[in-house]
Amino acid sequence: MRIRTFPLPALLGGADISSSRAVVIDTLRMTTTATTALENGGECVFPVATVEGAKEIAHSLSALLCGERDGLKIPGFDFGNSPLEYTPKAVRGRKLIFTTTNGSLAILAAKGADRLYLGCLRNRLALANRLRESVDIALVCAGTLGQFSMEDTLTAGAIIAALPRASYMDDFSHAALALFRLHQGNVHAALSPTAHYRYLQQCGFQGDLDYCLRLDASDALPALSNDALCLV
Amino acid sequence: MRIRTFPLPALLGGADISSSRAVVIDTLRMTTTATTALENGGECVFPVATVEGAKEIAHSLSALLCGERDGLKIPGFDFGNSPLEYTPKAVRGRKLIFTTTNGSLAILAAKGADRLYLGCLRNRLALANRLRESVDIALVCAGTLGQFSMEDTLTAGAIIAALPRASYMDDFSHAALALFRLHQGNVHAALSPTAHYRYLQQCGFQGDLDYCLRLDASDALPALSNDALCLV
Repeated sequence: MRIRTFPLPALLGGADISSSRAVVIDTLRMTTTATTALENGGECVFPVATVEGAKEIAHSLSALLCGERDGLKIPGFDFGNSPLEYTPKAVRGRKLIFTTTNGSLAILAAKGADRLYLGCLRNRLALANRLRESVDIALVCAGTLGQFSMEDTLTAGAIIAALPRASYMDDFSHAALALFRLHQGNVHAALSPTAHYRYLQQCGFQGDLDYCLRLDASDALPALSNDALCLV
Repeated sequence: MRIRTFPLPALLGGADISSSRAVVIDTLRMTTTATTALENGGECVFPVATVEGAKEIAHSLSALLCGERDGLKIPGFDFGNSPLEYTPKAVRGRKLIFTTTNGSLAILAAKGADRLYLGCLRNRLALANRLRESVDIALVCAGTLGQFSMEDTLTAGAIIAALPRASYMDDFSHAALALFRLHQGNVHAALSPTAHYRYLQQCGFQGDLDYCLRLDASDALPALSNDALCLV
């Protein structure tokens, strides 16, 4: 097993992931939220880059319009990016169009992978169980506005910690694993001085933070197929 | 004091460092080697992107031609990228032209900073003493061939650990500091599974690794001025 971890989607540029099982990680909050939406009965999630594109597709598919800019719900959208909004009542049987600042773009950047999953702390173990026979794994951290993010790195480290020992890991995989092992006892304390955690806290999303940072709480595993994410 | 740490020079793209004291870090080995060359009496070091450019400038300045591709000395060059080559006898009073795969390019990428220093583990304390009154610090890890490198991240963390407590650190600064604190007791063990450490070991450069990873062994502090690096 070979494991590479990319601190940011922009760094996929020179890398070949066409034979890789890729995991896109946007822990706070897109990949957690999309996983929850599907777990609660959403039919599928379409990641879209722009607000205009999202509106067009949502209209043509009679889908729910979901997403954020600057962490907040986009005017005219049905839902924002809080996983707590995506209750069974809200999403059951519905298609969802997602446009978010980091996660949706990371998914689109990693589309060239052999297989693409969404990863978060909540579905960490389900994901690791699915990947344990894989030859080549690429973990893609979404980051925040083009900057490295601690929470996605800790999630990458958590996934690696639950996988069999790899024959090769790149330097960033070693770093992510070490950081997860260091901080796994208190992820909230580790993240409390970091940028996006603080921003979401200031926006009043403490409930989201508690929800998103719960490890191994979900068996739901979204995978990309024909431009849509569905559970596998 | 605000501290930002960039995992790779490519990530400087969207960032403004024009008011920053920047530190370029290529621990294995360019910034260690250039620091050593100046410490041992070299007059100044010119970082140059290409082999052809290096040859031209070296000729016009009667300078020593120094650098590597794939870690090895470039054919026709005076010296490679091993700090142990840069003895007082070899370099005293000489100008040196450096072209290396990662460090030289990182220096050129960070030239827009208010002030640019070279950092490595050996001059860590000298550097931190120089920077302790700074308002805005940008640590720029050179990485290896466009990939995150553990050794540069540990060096960034070592520098942060020796600075006064910052009022703001970005996520990657937090990660670098945590990794340094975790591994400072045995940097060799932490680096032994990583890519560039192993590559240099396989090339027979164990002496370089021992030299480059020695903390606080040098007071030499190179800074960029008019395209040349000289001691300050």
